Amino acid sequence: MSTADQERLDRLERRLRELEDDREIRQLVASYGPAVDTGDAEATAALWTTDGSYDVGGMEKPFVGAEAVGNLVTIPGHQGYLARGCAHVMSAPVIHVDGDRATANCYSRLYLHDDDHWVVARVSSNRWELERTADGWRVARRENRLLDGDEAARALLRP
Amino acid sequence: MSTADQERLDRLERRLRELEDDREIRQLVASYGPAVDTGDAEATAALWTTDGSYDVGGMEKPFVGAEAVGNLVTIPGHQGYLARGCAHVMSAPVIHVDGDRATANCYSRLYLHDDDHWVVARVSSNRWELERTADGWRVARRENRLLDGDEAARALLRP
Amino acid sequence: MSTADQERLDRLERRLRELEDDREIRQLVASYGPAVDTGDAEATAALWTTDGSYDVGGMEKPFVGAEAVGNLVTIPGHQGYLARGCAHVMSAPVIHVDGDRATANCYSRLYLHDDDHWVVARVSSNRWELERTADGWRVARRENRLLDGDEAARALLRP
Repeated sequence: MSTADQERLDRLERRLRELEDDREIRQLVASYGPAVDTGDAEATAALWTTDGSYDVGGMEKPFVGAEAVGNLVTIPGHQGYLARGCAHVMSAPVIHVDGDRATANCYSRLYLHDDDHWVVARVSSNRWELERTADGWRVARRENRLLDGDEAARALLRP
Repeated sequence: MSTADQERLDRLERRLRELEDDREIRQLVASYGPAVDTGDAEATAALWTTDGSYDVGGMEKPFVGAEAVGNLVTIPGHQGYLARGCAHVMSAPVIHVDGDRATANCYSRLYLHDDDHWVVARVSSNRWELERTADGWRVARRENRLLDGDEAARALLRP
Repeated sequence: MSTADQERLDRLERRLRELEDDREIRQLVASYGPAVDTGDAEATAALWTTDGSYDVGGMEKPFVGAEAVGNLVTIPGHQGYLARGCAHVMSAPVIHVDGDRATANCYSRLYLHDDDHWVVARVSSNRWELERTADGWRVARRENRLLDGDEAARALLRP
């Protein structure tokens, strides 16, 4: 194969890798809801890097470390959501990949069951910082803020 | 072309096919809402395999066969939704493809118009079982359960 | 490289380009919410072609031209949303690409903060007409109608 043809193949592989990154990151973000809404600490932790963190709007301090993030499903507030009926739903993220790092900006909503309908109990902005690891993309840091008029929440929607 | 180069091309084609499957399945799932919210029985039926089924949370028995699934848009309850103003909105599915079969897990929400706002009338978990047919991916089976605290609903969010 | 191999590479590149179009259009649509919910007129305008338009349901006339579309974030109604806390969230679009033109059909929802929850203040159907420009895909025309039972809204969900 000529050098020109080799380079053409190299380019194809690079473009393909970019699309695969995009797909993998989308799946990662989409997997958060099902993990916490089934109360699965292990599946939730598995989305994060070992020392990754999750800074949740409205809580005093961030969860630090995959295990701590996973254990958020065991706290009484979350267990109450599960018993009542809950859905943590992400919007399609805007993704920017830069080598082995990426960011994803999206909205999340928490729907809670209430009699004959569901209440929209939280609407938040999210900024995910992601890392490519030996096992695929993982969450190094997620920040989440309630969209209640606070500038801090709007800041997370900026690229 | 050398055998090594041929194999490189084979791999590229395989990876591309996986991304195309992902895109096609996403489009299929995203097409459900527009089909039922325009009251289009034919477009709804066309998403399913001929003998596919849809097991809807809160209903006595599943719809069996593409035609029966399509005809759900003609039932009085659904016609009432259309007259009132409705939106059946899917979240981004978590997709797993295994050859000519695939599963997709996601949330769905039904918004109904009510005066100056919309009520979140249903929030459900969904498990789609999909098949690759000669005409592309189709729904072989969809299960849907209300996220009202019932374990059966949470089960549909597991991979 | 043989002609057959060259054609194989051509096909690969074509299929890859289709997936890249799909990704780019999804990112474009997903970028609308973050642009308007941060009150960023420039970022909003940048999504449209110079002479593109946005026909918003419930308003007297469409915004015409990227600059006018971007300036919608400065109108008092929108500034009130920002102060109160708002989220303009798109569903995954159903995308059809035809050369340098494309359409995308999706739902949008406007969530507004209200004390201890968020109100679903708007649920709309959307039809985006997109154009491939020298700088990538841009919005040539977007139509949006409230899903309040009106046939005009249902029409925007049809392919």
